Amino acid sequence: MKIIFNRRYVMSEDYRAMWQDLGVDLEGHDALLAVLGDAYRDIYLAQKNRPEAMAYFDFVMSEVHGLRIKELMDEKREGRKIIGSYCVFVPEEIALAANATLVGLCSGADFAMEEVERLLPRNTCALIKSSFGFKLAKVCPYLESADMVVGENTCDGKKKAYETLGGLVDNLYIMDLPQVKSAQGRELLKAEYLRFKDAVEVLTGVKITAESLRDAIVLVNKKRAAMHRLLALRKADPAPISGLDSLLANQIFFYDNPQRFTESVHLLCDELEKRVAEKRGVSAPRTPRILISGCPQAVPNWKLPMIIEGLGAVIVGEESCVGERGTRNLTDESGESVAEMMDAIVDRYFAVDCAIFTPNGERRDHIREMVESYGADGVIHYGLQFCQPYLMEAVPVENSLEEVGIPCLRLETDYSMEDMGQLKTRVEAFVEQLR
Amino acid sequence: MKIIFNRRYVMSEDYRAMWQDLGVDLEGHDALLAVLGDAYRDIYLAQKNRPEAMAYFDFVMSEVHGLRIKELMDEKREGRKIIGSYCVFVPEEIALAANATLVGLCSGADFAMEEVERLLPRNTCALIKSSFGFKLAKVCPYLESADMVVGENTCDGKKKAYETLGGLVDNLYIMDLPQVKSAQGRELLKAEYLRFKDAVEVLTGVKITAESLRDAIVLVNKKRAAMHRLLALRKADPAPISGLDSLLANQIFFYDNPQRFTESVHLLCDELEKRVAEKRGVSAPRTPRILISGCPQAVPNWKLPMIIEGLGAVIVGEESCVGERGTRNLTDESGESVAEMMDAIVDRYFAVDCAIFTPNGERRDHIREMVESYGADGVIHYGLQFCQPYLMEAVPVENSLEEVGIPCLRLETDYSMEDMGQLKTRVEAFVEQLR
Ligand code: SF4
Ligand code: SF4
Ligand code: SF4
Ligand code: SF4
Repeated sequence: MKIIFNRRYVMSEDYRAMWQDLGVDLEGHDALLAVLGDAYRDIYLAQKNRPEAMAYFDFVMSEVHGLRIKELMDEKREGRKIIGSYCVFVPEEIALAANATLVGLCSGADFAMEEVERLLPRNTCALIKSSFGFKLAKVCPYLESADMVVGENTCDGKKKAYETLGGLVDNLYIMDLPQVKSAQGRELLKAEYLRFKDAVEVLTGVKITAESLRDAIVLVNKKRAAMHRLLALRKADPAPISGLDSLLANQIFFYDNPQRFTESVHLLCDELEKRVAEKRGVSAPRTPRILISGCPQAVPNWKLPMIIEGLGAVIVGEESCVGERGTRNLTDESGESVAEMMDAIVDRYFAVDCAIFTPNGERRDHIREMVESYGADGVIHYGLQFCQPYLMEAVPVENSLEEVGIPCLRLETDYSMEDMGQLKTRVEAFVEQLR
Repeated sequence: MKIIFNRRYVMSEDYRAMWQDLGVDLEGHDALLAVLGDAYRDIYLAQKNRPEAMAYFDFVMSEVHGLRIKELMDEKREGRKIIGSYCVFVPEEIALAANATLVGLCSGADFAMEEVERLLPRNTCALIKSSFGFKLAKVCPYLESADMVVGENTCDGKKKAYETLGGLVDNLYIMDLPQVKSAQGRELLKAEYLRFKDAVEVLTGVKITAESLRDAIVLVNKKRAAMHRLLALRKADPAPISGLDSLLANQIFFYDNPQRFTESVHLLCDELEKRVAEKRGVSAPRTPRILISGCPQAVPNWKLPMIIEGLGAVIVGEESCVGERGTRNLTDESGESVAEMMDAIVDRYFAVDCAIFTPNGERRDHIREMVESYGADGVIHYGLQFCQPYLMEAVPVENSLEEVGIPCLRLETDYSMEDMGQLKTRVEAFVEQLR
């Protein structure tokens, strides 16, 4: 079977045998790819004024379960291990330094909800339900190919759900995380990263050296720096790239080959620089500019940007783990020993301002800085229903923006399409207010 | 104004001036007491075959905002400090050793919900909403009289809500808690208890000594041991005391004077022992026996036991923080130095099997043990809506009980009376199944 994913690409190989070998459920998987393909065509390929260089990202998406999985399988045959992760607190540097590949497990679509709700409370956020759905339905080749899956004690929902996921996934490794940015909190994170390093070394049989760790730090920093370049270009008015396309780059960040991804982002940026110089954009100058802030938007969760940009506004930033919260900080590269570099990694991740931390005033500061630097006219706070950390922070975020005269719209939604009409109405009114 | 709280007691003094001095809102407070009084009369005083010694607990409840507050005010005038707490992880031993009184802040009723939902997401558990409602409406004299209020990083909801509560309550002290029972987790708890000890010493100006700490440990242990005696008596068939009355004792545990409470529980137990010897109980032998397990039931949240016992079953145990989870363990009394005793306190609390910990298999073991030891025929798992830790554990709890052939009914509810009909129907069917 060939999946006609978009107009430009047709899956170049028959991957069904590979999927079957992985234990993927072919029928469910066909259904998933069909939905994914349709959504991609309607949401992404229907956009106007797309940069040419987005062709690469289209290709990656069209081959998300094809070529990329084949690459991972080839890596595995050469002895490399695959580690799956659900959170930006799992350091890619450590995986890479031990000759492993880290892939994000996206969890951006509802699947097998009936089975999921037999294991999890109905009042669980869509991300967590999705991660269970993909596993129960066996439709994610990343999850099925992973040699280790890392769960982290971040929010209550994930922390407790992993107890059940442990019975469904082989080799689920649980990483504990602090809740406060105290000296003890940092100690805990450091101890946990050292424990993770040991576990990865055992998994791969590769001892991390100063050299391999430095190379990994540099590689991941380059990937982040490329994203920084992309983000900076979005400051221009008119915006040279849509929020949808930028989100796609942020999403692909989590599972593409790091070198190739970095190069592709730079190619995209070269093109965007020309656009900016020529004052060409995806929409007219002075189009209402929106910053999205809140919960991560995992592949293929393009619901909110589709609504916002469909209503004629443009998204200029994502304050999210699939976005600037995830890529903001670089790891210091000056360490000489493994110990020094591990400390640098701890420092880097300890600065991430996820809402699981308390207090978390840095996040409010960052949102204000982003509003300022991207010239956003308003902020849409994106909260997944039942996500207590982000929904609880939404009110103080709104208050903090009010102080500087920036309107904020707090939305609470999930992955279903049932509230599309209501969301559209609310976003439309908000965008009108910004014109 | 005199509040006629029940048939036996009439508030013996006019406390309005005291409440006003504390900043309590008299109008809202009148409304609260009226509701409380009615509920108490309908739920508690309407019971049949109550032990005589429950008269003490009736009196305490009737004077919950009267005499007990006056006592606390008298203590304050003598220089004692009052510390309010929302969780059993705040060690009463430390407060007492520094000449402070610890009171639980109950949060068992909806109040000022409209104002609350301006500050907190709608999808927040009833306990947390209630704690905000009592503060916003200024109807809790305990909260208003507290010199320090302790919030703890347990569930996401509380952890994040305290950030907002800090703006409403003077002197909110935040205690960090671990999520995993690892060596690092214990270190964190120990460091936090030492930091709390310092903060309490600063608050009271009293240095904790080996003597004062030992006295406090012994005092709190006695209170717990009295509860253990009460719990053990409930093993008898027929049960000598209702679940409603036992719950009341568990609730009053958190704010009555410790010595007097301990003595009163023993007096009650003396009477219950006679009942057991005479095979007299609150209901007929072989009445279906229920264990309640799950979220805490704070004053005046008597909703579920009222339903269960109203349908002719008897509750024989509470696996809850307002119940056996909170009182199960004693603190080792053999320490000689403050350091040794602080370690004993850490060990004691680190054993509490709250669902915020992961993994938390001890809780499942304890539930099975309780079923066995109290001769329960079935378990009703009580989950507050939106409480992720307990709702997430409910499924594994049910599975674990299924393995030993014990039926389990998972309920999810809040403080409103809207679902009374539905709950009654479900509980009734469950009780029928146990007959
Ligand atoms: S929002 Fe928090 S828990 Fe979620 S991926 Fe980001 S850091 Fe991890
Ligand atoms: S969206 Fe919120 S509740 Fe869901 S996994 Fe992320 S932090 Fe947890
Ligand atoms: S259930 Fe957990 S968070 Fe709640 S009072 Fe008990 S120990 Fe504290
Ligand atoms: S009932 Fe659950 S959500 Fe509510 S405060 Fe307790 S642990 Fe937190």
